[in-house]
Amino acid sequence: KWLEKKYFNTVDSLESLYVERLKEAVAIPSVSGDVAYRENVFQMGQWLIGLFQKLGISYEAIDLGTQVLENKTLKLPPVLLGTYGNDPKKKTILVYGHYDVQPALIEDGWNSPPFELVETDKHQLIGRGSSDDKGPIIGWLNAIEAHQKAGIEFPVNLKICFEESGSEGLDELVFKEANRYFKGVDAVCISDNYWLGVKKPCLTYGLRGITYYKVVVSGPGRDLHSGVFGGTVHEPMTDLISLLSKLVTPSGKILIPGINDDDENKTYESIEFDLNEYHEAIGSKTTIHDDKINTLQHRWRYPSCSIHGIEGAFSASGAKTVLPAKVQGKFSIRLVPNMDPERVNTLVEKYLNEEFSKLKTRNSLKIESLHGAKAWVASPDHWNYVAAAKAVEMVFNVKPDYTREGGSIPVTLTFQDALDKNVLLLPMGRGDDGAHSTNEKLDRSNYISGIKLFGAYLHEIAATKI
Amino acid sequence: KWLEKKYFNTVDSLESLYVERLKEAVAIPSVSGDVAYRENVFQMGQWLIGLFQKLGISYEAIDLGTQVLENKTLKLPPVLLGTYGNDPKKKTILVYGHYDVQPALIEDGWNSPPFELVETDKHQLIGRGSSDDKGPIIGWLNAIEAHQKAGIEFPVNLKICFEESGSEGLDELVFKEANRYFKGVDAVCISDNYWLGVKKPCLTYGLRGITYYKVVVSGPGRDLHSGVFGGTVHEPMTDLISLLSKLVTPSGKILIPGINDDDENKTYESIEFDLNEYHEAIGSKTTIHDDKINTLQHRWRYPSCSIHGIEGAFSASGAKTVLPAKVQGKFSIRLVPNMDPERVNTLVEKYLNEEFSKLKTRNSLKIESLHGAKAWVASPDHWNYVAAAKAVEMVFNVKPDYTREGGSIPVTLTFQDALDKNVLLLPMGRGDDGAHSTNEKLDRSNYISGIKLFGAYLHEIAATKI
Ligand SMILES: [Zn+2]
Ligand SMILES: [Zn+2]
Ligand SMILES: [Zn+2]
Ligand SMILES: [Zn+2]
Repeated sequence: KWLEKKYFNTVDSLESLYVERLKEAVAIPSVSGDVAYRENVFQMGQWLIGLFQKLGISYEAIDLGTQVLENKTLKLPPVLLGTYGNDPKKKTILVYGHYDVQPALIEDGWNSPPFELVETDKHQLIGRGSSDDKGPIIGWLNAIEAHQKAGIEFPVNLKICFEESGSEGLDELVFKEANRYFKGVDAVCISDNYWLGVKKPCLTYGLRGITYYKVVVSGPGRDLHSGVFGGTVHEPMTDLISLLSKLVTPSGKILIPGINDDDENKTYESIEFDLNEYHEAIGSKTTIHDDKINTLQHRWRYPSCSIHGIEGAFSASGAKTVLPAKVQGKFSIRLVPNMDPERVNTLVEKYLNEEFSKLKTRNSLKIESLHGAKAWVASPDHWNYVAAAKAVEMVFNVKPDYTREGGSIPVTLTFQDALDKNVLLLPMGRGDDGAHSTNEKLDRSNYISGIKLFGAYLHEIAATKI
Repeated sequence: KWLEKKYFNTVDSLESLYVERLKEAVAIPSVSGDVAYRENVFQMGQWLIGLFQKLGISYEAIDLGTQVLENKTLKLPPVLLGTYGNDPKKKTILVYGHYDVQPALIEDGWNSPPFELVETDKHQLIGRGSSDDKGPIIGWLNAIEAHQKAGIEFPVNLKICFEESGSEGLDELVFKEANRYFKGVDAVCISDNYWLGVKKPCLTYGLRGITYYKVVVSGPGRDLHSGVFGGTVHEPMTDLISLLSKLVTPSGKILIPGINDDDENKTYESIEFDLNEYHEAIGSKTTIHDDKINTLQHRWRYPSCSIHGIEGAFSASGAKTVLPAKVQGKFSIRLVPNMDPERVNTLVEKYLNEEFSKLKTRNSLKIESLHGAKAWVASPDHWNYVAAAKAVEMVFNVKPDYTREGGSIPVTLTFQDALDKNVLLLPMGRGDDGAHSTNEKLDRSNYISGIKLFGAYLHEIAATKI
């Protein structure tokens, strides 16, 4: 095929440049969740703008105002809207990605400094953001550059939306710009997820939603000494632990009445999924189920409830005999289609208030819903998916699996709702990349094949009659 | 009385000097539990040595070697052994105190910088260590100085032991030095606790012990993302919360079989104890009981169990969707007389292992006992207590209450066991001083009266025929 020859060969010839570029991006610690790194998030935006300019992508950097983080008012990083091509005869595809990353400290258990991209002898490129989501966003730009260097006409008009993942104000912006900047978009492609396993590519057509809660139990006016007061006061920590223990069983069954009502049904037999790979991704064999179908169903079609931690309790090493005065438990529920976050909030609040009153404590309880997002499912028969499937076959010589994901990418729903266009999730990395975890990596082969895939997908889109 | 006139008047005339001296000591942030302040702990020892030299106290600074803290090997602060007087016709009293302090950050909720002694309009001297334990240790030295300035002969030989609270190696040292440095000690006085309330002085003849545990639940090889893995893996956090919820009810009942067996009995009616003051000390009305006797019994004669926090879980502000791979719950049990820490350890381990196996999780459990100390009771009829009671009457015009404490001061037991002498706890501060908490304070009047009390106590000792 003409494309394989010219575009793929050009991508291969630029491989070192692409890895260098990813290395540069990883070196910018654009951690959005930590006040101390805010400047670096802006720096990362600036770095992308430099690449936009170099590639002739026209752009706007949209200021979303400020946010409050750790009691500080901070400028929100800009949303970068880019436009590459404006030919009315071509289709217009919107691609989305985020340029911020999760926190990472070498003490968390990284084998190398998290903000230095290093390559292992298995050709894994290790570094924070390598797979989530710097590899993919740079992938789109690399694809443009490869077209330029190969002298191939770019097959579609590309609209680009790169931002800080789930910025406050992004939803508003997308709805506001639906009839201006986003006007004319025919379909959306988001590369911010992963293959199901480590071998077979997939297209992703569904995501779980989420509701996230903060449960605050407080009583004493200040932290107390357990020797002096232990046994005589209602300890907020005891109450909170007691309450959190009533959310979910060790086998994952959610105990909140009304939460397990969903009865969506589906066959999962044909999907390639290796439980051994999954165990490798987890780093242990501590899965709840021993079979593929139950594991996938509990990942995609059933809600789950996780307890993340406690703010305000003693969390350092060593032995401190404090009775914390105010403790804030954090947990979240992953939602599946048909679960309305508002209704889930109501059920959670009712249940926790009832259980708290059973504790007969004099402490007080406050429940806050920190964020929520509905689940999402798209139609995998849409031409957007058909084009992507053809591109996968061209690059990998295999038909993709059609998967869903356990995680939520709220912007997916926003684009679908605001633009009323089909949204495709087209992952670049593998299921064991460890996004949000230590030693996050992107395989060199996934990175390079991903750039080919992105280009091939856009050419298949262009070839589609609609 | 001769003493009142001369010694008390001298103490009064030195009041500003004494407050200045406490201010100097509080300004040295001798936090022993934090690697970053280790130098300051040494600096505080040096500051005390300066005062020893000025007052003509001969001393040895004993090097205890090193300890490991936060994975760093650190030099242990020296134990300061001082000797003031060596007259075979006088009794020899050993006084103990510690010169390190608890951690304190202004962000924890201090109204003023914790290492600056400031005085409120209620004449409270606020600052970390003011009451625990810098006020008392400087109190002993001030008493010596007042005798010198007043030209009064010091009534006893004083042996001084000032150290980092519960240093590794102190027990060994005390046993080793029992027949050398501590030889000839007739009785021991420790000022490292508080009045029961805010009005009436007390002598303390009992302490609860403690066992402190770390419960480690681990499974996944690394932290995981709840969206990707939630619902399919056994989450260590769920298991740990479930386990911790089985330790103690919100009303303080310990659920570990065998722990509530103790049946010591005692009347508490005559003790002055104001539940309103207690509520003020707690900063809320969240006590479990509404009456004096139950509250005191649960503080002194019953064991209690407190959950302090979790290491390894998400503990910052905000909303992170992590599934922590390894979480370490910290809890402790306060012991009463007749409870053997070793036996308690056995009961705790058996119970937790049984409950863990009921969880049917694939994660693994490890239980560590971090430290332990027996409870302690002394005889309040001993001449050491009788002398202290007379001194209280002289300074405060009231008979002291005889109290016990909920907390543990392991060195109390060490001195009693190693020297086989009566140990008295003679508090300087009030029940609401907030040691180990934010805005720790020592009332100016308690500080000055305490210096008088220490001197009067030593004179009463000298006047006792034994
Ligand atoms: Zn992402
Ligand atoms: Zn992510
Ligand atoms: Zn102390
Ligand atoms: Zn203390």
